[in-house]
Amino acid sequence: MQKIRTSICSRDASELVTLLADVPYIEVVQHAETANKIDTDSVEILLASPDLASQIVERCNNMKWLQSTWAGNAPLLKLSKRNYILTAVKNIFTAQMREYVFTYILHHFRKVEAMKSATDWQAVLPQYLANRTLGIMGAGSIAASLLPVAQAFSMKVIGLNRSGNEHPGYQSMYILEDKQTFAAHCDAIVNLLPDTPLTYHAIDGDFLSAMKPGGVLINAGRGEAIDEAALLHSLQHDKPALAVLDVFRQEPLPTTHPFWRHPKTIITHHTAAISDTTKVAECFIDNAKRYLNGEPLQYQLDFDQGY
Amino acid sequence: MQKIRTSICSRDASELVTLLADVPYIEVVQHAETANKIDTDSVEILLASPDLASQIVERCNNMKWLQSTWAGNAPLLKLSKRNYILTAVKNIFTAQMREYVFTYILHHFRKVEAMKSATDWQAVLPQYLANRTLGIMGAGSIAASLLPVAQAFSMKVIGLNRSGNEHPGYQSMYILEDKQTFAAHCDAIVNLLPDTPLTYHAIDGDFLSAMKPGGVLINAGRGEAIDEAALLHSLQHDKPALAVLDVFRQEPLPTTHPFWRHPKTIITHHTAAISDTTKVAECFIDNAKRYLNGEPLQYQLDFDQGY
Repeated sequence: MQKIRTSICSRDASELVTLLADVPYIEVVQHAETANKIDTDSVEILLASPDLASQIVERCNNMKWLQSTWAGNAPLLKLSKRNYILTAVKNIFTAQMREYVFTYILHHFRKVEAMKSATDWQAVLPQYLANRTLGIMGAGSIAASLLPVAQAFSMKVIGLNRSGNEHPGYQSMYILEDKQTFAAHCDAIVNLLPDTPLTYHAIDGDFLSAMKPGGVLINAGRGEAIDEAALLHSLQHDKPALAVLDVFRQEPLPTTHPFWRHPKTIITHHTAAISDTTKVAECFIDNAKRYLNGEPLQYQLDFDQGY
Repeated sequence: MQKIRTSICSRDASELVTLLADVPYIEVVQHAETANKIDTDSVEILLASPDLASQIVERCNNMKWLQSTWAGNAPLLKLSKRNYILTAVKNIFTAQMREYVFTYILHHFRKVEAMKSATDWQAVLPQYLANRTLGIMGAGSIAASLLPVAQAFSMKVIGLNRSGNEHPGYQSMYILEDKQTFAAHCDAIVNLLPDTPLTYHAIDGDFLSAMKPGGVLINAGRGEAIDEAALLHSLQHDKPALAVLDVFRQEPLPTTHPFWRHPKTIITHHTAAISDTTKVAECFIDNAKRYLNGEPLQYQLDFDQGY
């Protein structure tokens, strides 16, 4: 039987080895939790997190296919090496992401913090989601998973994507050029845009000043989408009143960064969607079978488009 | 034209007067924000909050109908006076209540507090709603409004009501006698039971010790449903790990009560659903028309059943 000779480089390497142990067509030839322990000459098929993989792929001259354990793969897409198939994991984050987004939208409007410290029942007047507008930047599969929840809460949903083409579930769809009009309509904004040159600083001073005061901005996409200096300035004017930030230009966020102790930010340490190792393994097992059968792999990334 | 000669006793009396001013068949004969300012002999139709109304109704010998401005009317249902029609406001709380419930369920499982104080992105592992079980005690209209949200989050829902009869949207329905089996299945429990002799201390030591450790208990029904001493004891064993309490045996909660500073409770000051004065006025206007036309009123309460 032909086998997928797999090298694994991941903080969850041991768990992945266990999860792949019973698959007859997968042979793990090496595994390590750090990049420097990988014998790059032996790498044919690599199952790895993109931060670790990016440290070694340029030396992996025999690598045919890299299955990433993450959805976002900017560290790999930015390298000049492109002579391999790069696949991501997708659709395993939707439940986590939709819960993340609504946890913090509700947290903001319900005034959980103020309520906690209040001793007078009339001191805090919660606000409600019903009839408010949720704006989603980046209308992909994660965005789609937010729609039923928004609908169940009687929210309106508008979107922003590359084409501006209408999508079911969105009252209207904007393009980046109309981002200020988009921002002006939203009470809550969730950024899920991928990290591409086009989306760099999409959320800039113009965007932020167009927002309604009092709303919430959630960045669960990529750090580069936000002009962090502009955001710090705009928070002073309650545009937004709360920024919930999962991703940053530099990660981990430097300990001296003003976001850390800012009263209008919540930092969530890139936990909006954590890779579920079991599901990563399932995704790899499925793609490995496709690879053996010469079928197209799922979630293959395009180096030119950058996602 | 025949008119509904209305006395108003509510903290929102002035606002209600304004909202009713243009209704040709309603005449406000007196209004006050406290009970002692109402001339009880002049009361024919009373629009009032139950806490204030309960201070005077026994002296309102000419009162035919009392439209309460609240959903819960235990203070009135407990009095011996029953020779009048008592109507509540309903269905105006559903959006607020469903947001309240999911704000705090998400707050608990997503570990918002721990995340806020963490500086290490791997220090906090959020938990998720998907595939967890939500248990709803009291399967009425507010409970029904929770079902689409629970479904959108991929939660299972089980219920507890008086009959145990199956309801659409619930995987199974329990009766009070089976409350420990019910409790054992739930990750999150929301109490919406009305305050009746049958539901007094429904959530007692037996119920609490049957719970899975680590879950969340939300009381948005009536304070009397929980044995508060048993809850204080059970919190020590993480059953539940968090109690979100909107209502209490004694309100406002006495400042010396141990719930105030307990690390595993969140106190929300009876704000889960705040009467929306506009909607209260709409409800009264509609019922006043029905009253004039001799039609049955909406949301009439039954003194024997207690709801």
